[in-house]
Amino acid sequence: MPYEIHKVVSEEDRVCAGLTTIWWSISVTLDPALLCTTTTTVAGSPAFKQDRMWLNGKEISLSGGRYQNCLREIRARANDVEDEKKGIKIAKKDWENLHVHVASYNNFPTAAGLASSAAGFACLVYSLAKLMNVQEDNGRLSAIVRQGSGSACRSLYGGFVKWVMGKEENGSDSIAVPLVDEKHWDELVIIIAVVCSRQKETSSTSGMRETVETSALIEHRAKEVVPKRIIQMEEAIQKRDFATFTHLTCADSNQFHAFCLDTSPPIFYMNDTSHRQVLLTSTVLRNETVQKELHRFTVALVNVFGLVTEYNKCCQVAYTFDAGPNAVLIARNRISAALLLQRLLFHFPPNSETDLNSYIIGDKSLMEDIGIQDIKDIEALPPPPEIKDKVPAKKYKGEISYFICTRLGRGPVLISDDSQALLHPDTGLPK
Amino acid sequence: MPYEIHKVVSEEDRVCAGLTTIWWSISVTLDPALLCTTTTTVAGSPAFKQDRMWLNGKEISLSGGRYQNCLREIRARANDVEDEKKGIKIAKKDWENLHVHVASYNNFPTAAGLASSAAGFACLVYSLAKLMNVQEDNGRLSAIVRQGSGSACRSLYGGFVKWVMGKEENGSDSIAVPLVDEKHWDELVIIIAVVCSRQKETSSTSGMRETVETSALIEHRAKEVVPKRIIQMEEAIQKRDFATFTHLTCADSNQFHAFCLDTSPPIFYMNDTSHRQVLLTSTVLRNETVQKELHRFTVALVNVFGLVTEYNKCCQVAYTFDAGPNAVLIARNRISAALLLQRLLFHFPPNSETDLNSYIIGDKSLMEDIGIQDIKDIEALPPPPEIKDKVPAKKYKGEISYFICTRLGRGPVLISDDSQALLHPDTGLPK
Repeated sequence: MPYEIHKVVSEEDRVCAGLTTIWWSISVTLDPALLCTTTTTVAGSPAFKQDRMWLNGKEISLSGGRYQNCLREIRARANDVEDEKKGIKIAKKDWENLHVHVASYNNFPTAAGLASSAAGFACLVYSLAKLMNVQEDNGRLSAIVRQGSGSACRSLYGGFVKWVMGKEENGSDSIAVPLVDEKHWDELVIIIAVVCSRQKETSSTSGMRETVETSALIEHRAKEVVPKRIIQMEEAIQKRDFATFTHLTCADSNQFHAFCLDTSPPIFYMNDTSHRQVLLTSTVLRNETVQKELHRFTVALVNVFGLVTEYNKCCQVAYTFDAGPNAVLIARNRISAALLLQRLLFHFPPNSETDLNSYIIGDKSLMEDIGIQDIKDIEALPPPPEIKDKVPAKKYKGEISYFICTRLGRGPVLISDDSQALLHPDTGLPK
Repeated sequence: MPYEIHKVVSEEDRVCAGLTTIWWSISVTLDPALLCTTTTTVAGSPAFKQDRMWLNGKEISLSGGRYQNCLREIRARANDVEDEKKGIKIAKKDWENLHVHVASYNNFPTAAGLASSAAGFACLVYSLAKLMNVQEDNGRLSAIVRQGSGSACRSLYGGFVKWVMGKEENGSDSIAVPLVDEKHWDELVIIIAVVCSRQKETSSTSGMRETVETSALIEHRAKEVVPKRIIQMEEAIQKRDFATFTHLTCADSNQFHAFCLDTSPPIFYMNDTSHRQVLLTSTVLRNETVQKELHRFTVALVNVFGLVTEYNKCCQVAYTFDAGPNAVLIARNRISAALLLQRLLFHFPPNSETDLNSYIIGDKSLMEDIGIQDIKDIEALPPPPEIKDKVPAKKYKGEISYFICTRLGRGPVLISDDSQALLHPDTGLPK
């Protein structure tokens, strides 16, 4: 019985599930090796009396339209399966009547807003397609995933992925297209600042629908702004043009949240802590002192990292915010990321009872670069040079729950190691 | 020597000093009898060696272009002045060489963002025009005020005032036009929540210019959205149609702040406290429980206030935010204002050391309506009925500095009582 490990996608160019008919989008896939992995095992057997699914060990209902759409579309494309070694032989027509069991597990950090359900749907469809020997390419599969969860269609690829609007009324040509794989621009470092929100003040449910219905300007954005930006963004990604990439990423994040405000009643996803992240990245990291520091740092560390880094006045970090307060910060390279993390930790220290290992998760090597080995090292961080002596340094203790350090990652892969399967080979139930 | 008392304007339909060439706007004038009064005395004498001005007792320079523009334009329109009783006779041509002294005093609460400089310029021009017997009507005078401070041109009238865009390149037809006076819709009650901000995080300086330069959508707003809304707003004001008035006021405040976000780098005027004001007014006061309470309250209090209030499902309060975090809340009538103030005080109680008289300023009679006589009465306020028993009531102690209760007011008037003059009749210096 085949099983798969898939992984996760976080949306980078802010975008808008459910708006397939008017929307284009580009997303970035995060590295499953660091964090945010979804593992899914699927099995089919005549012994199974119904389709069943377990998510993180707990059985969930498959009766919803989203799941039924995916199961139906995959079954309709099933083919003969034969594995002589395992003694398996299933004819194409048999899949119609053969029930499946699905076990899925993800280690997404809570409240990070990293689209775990998108990863889940992508995983489910990919696994079922392997199980039933579906011959369609990822592009065709993405149209099926889309019927489970719109933005999830992008999760079938690694690196940068585009979701194409399509022209057909039935959405059959609204599919995901890979732009570049994760190796194309592997200098980028991603830091996600998960905001400690006392209480969710705005629900994201149906938020985009309300915007489309009540914003006086959204049509203009859809027709005039987004299509142009998508073309520019593709070019920036192809050329690894970080200045343009940053400009477009930040501008479109700003505009997405502008439209949330131009909704009746307005939707506030970003809060004061989010604003501080924006001001830190867009103002401080453009500051001349920081640019000089970066230059010194670059020269000093260029051998350590074996990187050749251009020094220029371009912003070193892009920010983007999804439908929530958490900042996704994309640093130009490891050096910029180190400078950024220093500042983030200086301005946003953890509450005193916090453990360092739970305050910075994912790729912990970045901590080593800036000499942080203990929670006390954060408290001891000197003010960054751009802080003038006379201006008291602003600190916002406890406003951030934790930081995730990660990078671009690959798309879903088939795991051949049977011992990693989540379903027991004899019973077909979760192990 | 003539002198004048003038008063203040707060911008209501969010608008954008400096954008005369593309912008229309509507503002509301606040009642100078309650708070926010500017008193200006002007005097001319051959004994004065230069033009001088004192603001709140402190001499300020008149050499800036804004002041020089106003002085030049008024002098160019001066006429003969003769007052037999006082023995004054000044010929039209003499004004060119006669220096003036100006003393201005305002009692605007600090940090309320109530455009005290707009009131100041309106006052200055109006006073000088009276002094020099300028025969132009307020519309023509407003074009002169505009050269001192764009949005100040609206401060020459009471009630609701429109600032007309104009077509001339030199801006000569960009003037203020009175829509209705303050008596036309005297049911409206205005509560301004002045937010206690730890530190100003965004400067408003040149904010709008940056938006115009970097927003991808601002031209569409200027051409398509604002002109239509101005027409609808004028009609709503004429008809006293509170539902439409509220919809337009809130929507345009939202859109103004949306455009501040769609700026590079983005401008955040509203903070978490501002967002809470929006959610309180746009969600809570539309809540059915509140509507029922309002109905009961209306029936019970209709005789007390002598008001006839319609009960319907329309929102009872409009909100609007200027280039800052403070909410300007416009209640449909005194009853809605009382319900609103109850909720504001419940959710935003003052810090324990605060004095009631400095926490609610302006028209204090609203406090009596809701039985608040002491700071302890605020602490003792029961949760509003829309707060469910199981949901803990959210309180944000100390987030608001103070509330200003006020209403629509009249335009500038000439004070005939010499004893109120700010300049000494003999020396021409501040008293």
